[in-house]
Amino acid sequence: LLVSSVAVACCQIPLRIGDASGNRVRTERAVRTASDAGARVIVLPELAATGYLFANPAELHACAEATDGPAVSAWAALSAELGAVLVAGFAERGPDGRIYNSAVLLEGGEIRARYRKAHLWDREKALFDPGDADPPVVETPHGRIGVMICYDLEFPEWVRRAALGGADLLAVPVNWPRFPRPRRERPAEIVRAQAAASENRMAIACCDRTGRERGQEWVGGSVILDQDGYPASAVRLGAAHTALAELDLSASRDKRISATNDVLADRRTDLYG
Amino acid sequence: LLVSSVAVACCQIPLRIGDASGNRVRTERAVRTASDAGARVIVLPELAATGYLFANPAELHACAEATDGPAVSAWAALSAELGAVLVAGFAERGPDGRIYNSAVLLEGGEIRARYRKAHLWDREKALFDPGDADPPVVETPHGRIGVMICYDLEFPEWVRRAALGGADLLAVPVNWPRFPRPRRERPAEIVRAQAAASENRMAIACCDRTGRERGQEWVGGSVILDQDGYPASAVRLGAAHTALAELDLSASRDKRISATNDVLADRRTDLYG
Repeated sequence: LLVSSVAVACCQIPLRIGDASGNRVRTERAVRTASDAGARVIVLPELAATGYLFANPAELHACAEATDGPAVSAWAALSAELGAVLVAGFAERGPDGRIYNSAVLLEGGEIRARYRKAHLWDREKALFDPGDADPPVVETPHGRIGVMICYDLEFPEWVRRAALGGADLLAVPVNWPRFPRPRRERPAEIVRAQAAASENRMAIACCDRTGRERGQEWVGGSVILDQDGYPASAVRLGAAHTALAELDLSASRDKRISATNDVLADRRTDLYG
Repeated sequence: LLVSSVAVACCQIPLRIGDASGNRVRTERAVRTASDAGARVIVLPELAATGYLFANPAELHACAEATDGPAVSAWAALSAELGAVLVAGFAERGPDGRIYNSAVLLEGGEIRARYRKAHLWDREKALFDPGDADPPVVETPHGRIGVMICYDLEFPEWVRRAALGGADLLAVPVNWPRFPRPRRERPAEIVRAQAAASENRMAIACCDRTGRERGQEWVGGSVILDQDGYPASAVRLGAAHTALAELDLSASRDKRISATNDVLADRRTDLYG
């Protein structure tokens, strides 16, 4: 197997809505910090270029950029300079003028994949068009990396698609709005990500944001999960920080969980898709 | 809606392999205890009539019984006497002579549904035939109750089938073998069940067993989860006890999680089954 141990980071940072140049500075600083700490796969939050809570479509349209726009170009240059794989979210203005909640996977200065969120959350339905393409899975020097965005991860059908596509690591930019939960319980967003990892024996890195935005608070639940679905990084809910973990991605290629069981081969494809 | 609050119990008990009459006494005693505590839906473990770790097919064949055999008949009588819905696992000898890892849902002395485990675990593959039918969903006075067994629950495709079939509560007899896990982490079996509940907004009651059997230890992780995927019952890992919770099953009929989001309606059925 051409995969082995790799340091993965999630940059849990604050963003400012509509502050394109400020967000570029914030994300670049965070990526450099993660790289300095040894990370070779670095994940930024959903809509890291713009912030999340657009007041209306006009504000979003003014912020959105083409895939070769300034935010993605700056991150792409950074991926080349640092020799790191970057995954980050941005508001994409498609060639057709439609706006998507997108993410890119960047390596060596190149856009290796662009993904458009397929499952839209709440007011996103009034702002963005949904994507129709499968989550991409990209062969990198560190292993095969899949990409999806936030609410996508709550659809096990979609996660399975990435696993069947061969992803060793699923990189998931998220903006998890904070909801009440029982005391001493882990946020349900993390619990669902844990299950998704273990049911597919696929590492998952969720990069959440922090910083109140237009009254919205966030879980701040960035977490890097191993193939058993357990956190490999420290979970520091709500804090601005870099979640960092060394992952053995070769373990994602072994789907066996007993002498005769394999989480993918045991699917009853005769009974469901 | 014709569903409301109902007390649900999982009887986390020890069983003895091959001791049919002893297991009948153990399960009956546990069901009476749960009923005395107010439970109207009572779940017993997987293979509650026989125990789990059969040495070979001959031992299993000697223990297996038809759906109208003594264990199921005794439980059915109990369901009538106590006015409770019972879900319990047993080794079924089918009319064709094949052996299945099955569960029944009993109410008012009747077998309302019989389900055969579709995803077989480890040595079960050498002992049982797999079932081919969907998880049943049964209309009861307390709401619609779905049934599947243990490893089935780790296939989100299968859980979705039960949710789309209208289950308000998924009753899951399990025998969860104990594996190592990181300190302070919840067993992955419970984490996956939590995710299954919240991704479908469907309550789930997992009834595990306890008591070492032929060297095997069990998680003893019985848990009753609400529609948000959080435990509604006390989790007492490994202990013989009755997990008990009052569930508002009408909440399972409301799949909305925001003004515009619905966990079932948001599935991209144009992109996957």
